[in-house]
Amino acid sequence: MSTEKEWFTAITDVAPNRIIVRGYRLEDLVRSVTFTDAAVLLLKGELPGPNEREMFDAVLVSAVDHGASPPSTLAARTVASTGGALNASLAAGLLSINSYHGGAVENCMRFLQEAVSSGEHGDAEEAADKIAQKYLEAKKRIPGYGHRMHRADPRVKVLKEKAEKLGFAGSFVRMALAVETALCRRGKELPLNVDGIMAALLCEMGYPPEMANAVFMFARLPGLIAHSVEERLRQRPVRRIYPAGFRYDGPAVRDLG
Amino acid sequence: MSTEKEWFTAITDVAPNRIIVRGYRLEDLVRSVTFTDAAVLLLKGELPGPNEREMFDAVLVSAVDHGASPPSTLAARTVASTGGALNASLAAGLLSINSYHGGAVENCMRFLQEAVSSGEHGDAEEAADKIAQKYLEAKKRIPGYGHRMHRADPRVKVLKEKAEKLGFAGSFVRMALAVETALCRRGKELPLNVDGIMAALLCEMGYPPEMANAVFMFARLPGLIAHSVEERLRQRPVRRIYPAGFRYDGPAVRDLG
Amino acid sequence: MSTEKEWFTAITDVAPNRIIVRGYRLEDLVRSVTFTDAAVLLLKGELPGPNEREMFDAVLVSAVDHGASPPSTLAARTVASTGGALNASLAAGLLSINSYHGGAVENCMRFLQEAVSSGEHGDAEEAADKIAQKYLEAKKRIPGYGHRMHRADPRVKVLKEKAEKLGFAGSFVRMALAVETALCRRGKELPLNVDGIMAALLCEMGYPPEMANAVFMFARLPGLIAHSVEERLRQRPVRRIYPAGFRYDGPAVRDLG
Amino acid sequence: MSTEKEWFTAITDVAPNRIIVRGYRLEDLVRSVTFTDAAVLLLKGELPGPNEREMFDAVLVSAVDHGASPPSTLAARTVASTGGALNASLAAGLLSINSYHGGAVENCMRFLQEAVSSGEHGDAEEAADKIAQKYLEAKKRIPGYGHRMHRADPRVKVLKEKAEKLGFAGSFVRMALAVETALCRRGKELPLNVDGIMAALLCEMGYPPEMANAVFMFARLPGLIAHSVEERLRQRPVRRIYPAGFRYDGPAVRDLG
Repeated sequence: MSTEKEWFTAITDVAPNRIIVRGYRLEDLVRSVTFTDAAVLLLKGELPGPNEREMFDAVLVSAVDHGASPPSTLAARTVASTGGALNASLAAGLLSINSYHGGAVENCMRFLQEAVSSGEHGDAEEAADKIAQKYLEAKKRIPGYGHRMHRADPRVKVLKEKAEKLGFAGSFVRMALAVETALCRRGKELPLNVDGIMAALLCEMGYPPEMANAVFMFARLPGLIAHSVEERLRQRPVRRIYPAGFRYDGPAVRDLG
Repeated sequence: MSTEKEWFTAITDVAPNRIIVRGYRLEDLVRSVTFTDAAVLLLKGELPGPNEREMFDAVLVSAVDHGASPPSTLAARTVASTGGALNASLAAGLLSINSYHGGAVENCMRFLQEAVSSGEHGDAEEAADKIAQKYLEAKKRIPGYGHRMHRADPRVKVLKEKAEKLGFAGSFVRMALAVETALCRRGKELPLNVDGIMAALLCEMGYPPEMANAVFMFARLPGLIAHSVEERLRQRPVRRIYPAGFRYDGPAVRDLG
Repeated sequence: MSTEKEWFTAITDVAPNRIIVRGYRLEDLVRSVTFTDAAVLLLKGELPGPNEREMFDAVLVSAVDHGASPPSTLAARTVASTGGALNASLAAGLLSINSYHGGAVENCMRFLQEAVSSGEHGDAEEAADKIAQKYLEAKKRIPGYGHRMHRADPRVKVLKEKAEKLGFAGSFVRMALAVETALCRRGKELPLNVDGIMAALLCEMGYPPEMANAVFMFARLPGLIAHSVEERLRQRPVRRIYPAGFRYDGPAVRDLG
Repeated sequence: MSTEKEWFTAITDVAPNRIIVRGYRLEDLVRSVTFTDAAVLLLKGELPGPNEREMFDAVLVSAVDHGASPPSTLAARTVASTGGALNASLAAGLLSINSYHGGAVENCMRFLQEAVSSGEHGDAEEAADKIAQKYLEAKKRIPGYGHRMHRADPRVKVLKEKAEKLGFAGSFVRMALAVETALCRRGKELPLNVDGIMAALLCEMGYPPEMANAVFMFARLPGLIAHSVEERLRQRPVRRIYPAGFRYDGPAVRDLG
């Protein structure tokens, strides 16, 4: 007789010599799918098709690192600097991804869902214009527009191209761009930023807004690992970490082979 | 004049409209590489070739989830159960990946490095036999051998096949298998487990042992996300979570399309 | 010239051979006040009088531990069980203190503030009765009432006595008791629980609801430390931790000297 | 029949209407002891006598805060700055207390234990002199001596006075001071710092070195809470936090009443 009180999960079945993830034998997955596929299977419940995989890969790659000044990177480096274990660094990094850092993706997803749904039975451009006006009059910032550093963010450009090419430039991407145009028409140079295009693409791929931070944390983890390891290897312990003082001395700019 | 004290990093250069990761323009990476490629670039400093990418994908997929009983999953679910934010769940999950959970990979990498180096100028099988004898006489457990649940772990089999096919069955994989054989010859049924084959493959791909936990945490994050989200959506708050009471009610077993 | 951009804090001034906390020389504090006094100084900005110190001490002691089944304790033990550092255990413990564990204190403080303010210009008992009726009709649970284990919680009784003795049985404590009476009159046996009396007393001492979790985490930290250390010293690594299987084998019941 | 597998703990017994901590009824503790007493009971297993309580209070108060530049404070503020919950801030703060921040107390405890034990059958001053010589010749730093900011640390002076007054200036405190004298005699101005005197006093009170970080984390928690709350209330989100740019604008210096 079991001494355990039963409870249910739809994620993974484990029995001797048998591991089933969302219905698939884990050995089949190891044999045939990429890690990105497996991650989508865990996050959404189903494997992506090839186009969705490539689109999701592009979204993840675009967020893999942004230098040493984001709060999550500084928190991870701060812990590493005190001699903390790598997982303590990463935990502190993830704990720094909240409404004001990474959170714009989730907020922009909610904004786009509302905007698309409000424009459903009419013209998308008209709907975008009304919304832009509403926010400007209320002096509220629309999440996903404007960036304190990049005016022509190279990530946004390439994600838009990919979206076109792979068939993910649907109603959310169109609305995101229509709002940018509407803001511009009203004299506001607030280009769609990387959070905004990520938000539009996650909507296109069917993620709920609650998953935005999960995707961002997953995408940024390799960057947090690299910074935590580098801090330990290159810097002296408990140094003062100047948040914008970092200079790059890695490999010179090179083309992909 | 800058008010910042300078310090140096070789990871990412950030300037207006320009993001360079390890020498590559981020937009080139987004356009052309997979997330696994980008992760390898961050973790190791260089992009993998196609075979290394496929091998690393396989390693990551094999560790993506193992049901609801690992301590990291229980810790993540415990936090989710109290109403904690998703990043708090994930942080608690990562904080549970230590020497006794996930740590066998790192220990086995050290073991294999020593074993391969000791057998360098002679016969690998002989070296493996001596090591097996040494551990058995000292009644010490060799990390990476034996599993409390799986005797014929499906993940090990497929990772060995992949290693052969992709050219990663080098001296570390051979040593790992030679030790298994030597143990068996001495009457010990302690098959190479998933930690052991991961360790051998990470050695083959040139990772230092210190990176083992990083790879494991990265691989397991999608699983931790799925469990944290499911706990919140399916279970009542602050329930008692029985560590081995979980039953699978997800999709029935299905073949990859 | 300083390379630092200035910012301001009202907590602690540090200069060579000089540390000033909220205006007091740290050496004066070390010489003359208790740790509870110093904690109040940090949390509220001012030192407590002797009665407030004794009242706050009582609140903190009442929450110092509640055995091995609270989620924060299980999370801390889970991390300890994997070989994690003590601070990783404690971090996981704190990350488990959220709306459904510890959070009732904050919610009850908001409830009592509203109740007291609604009854300000009339009879407290009448106000309590109206509120009880409102919640019962809406089938909503009032935070701070009822307990799944204790019907006559020994902590509640002694905290009420202390409040009387020390002059902290003011409008919030009276309202908390009036609601209990009102619920009872309407056939609901939902006694004020330890979260409820803590909430009333924190209101009496002038804490805002946002500080409730801070007080609870501070109070519980010694318990989390004790459990984390004991897990490492007494239990084998990565055991299955049964959430309600713990049995006490410590010192027999004894009287205070 | 119970569905739980039994396991044992010597900390707290919980049954309906009954909570026993280390043998004492929790209501007796709430009625009669301070929070510092209760913390000692949890940490050491026994209540302190009045002198030990006062000594431990002094140790805790001396570590309650040290301004905004320690890594734990910066990590906690960084998380707060991103909109993270208070417990996420505190977790990141605790995760920053490691070998290079807070860890000197533990290392100094080990040093003093060895020094005292080596001098057991002879003269303490002679033993101290030999040790000082050994470290100076090896160009190794002795943990607990020297401070980058304070030459005459006000915390050290008052803790030494308290130790004398309360009867805690035993063999560990004497050895700590003898080493300082020996270093001075050899031309090294490395005064015993606050970590060093804390280490000596924790040895006197019977704590093992493994508990040093626990005591430091407990002592610093009120400071971390104050900084996390202040960051949220006074600063704009995701600002750049300059590690040594903080200026104090709290209450002017005042005497204890």
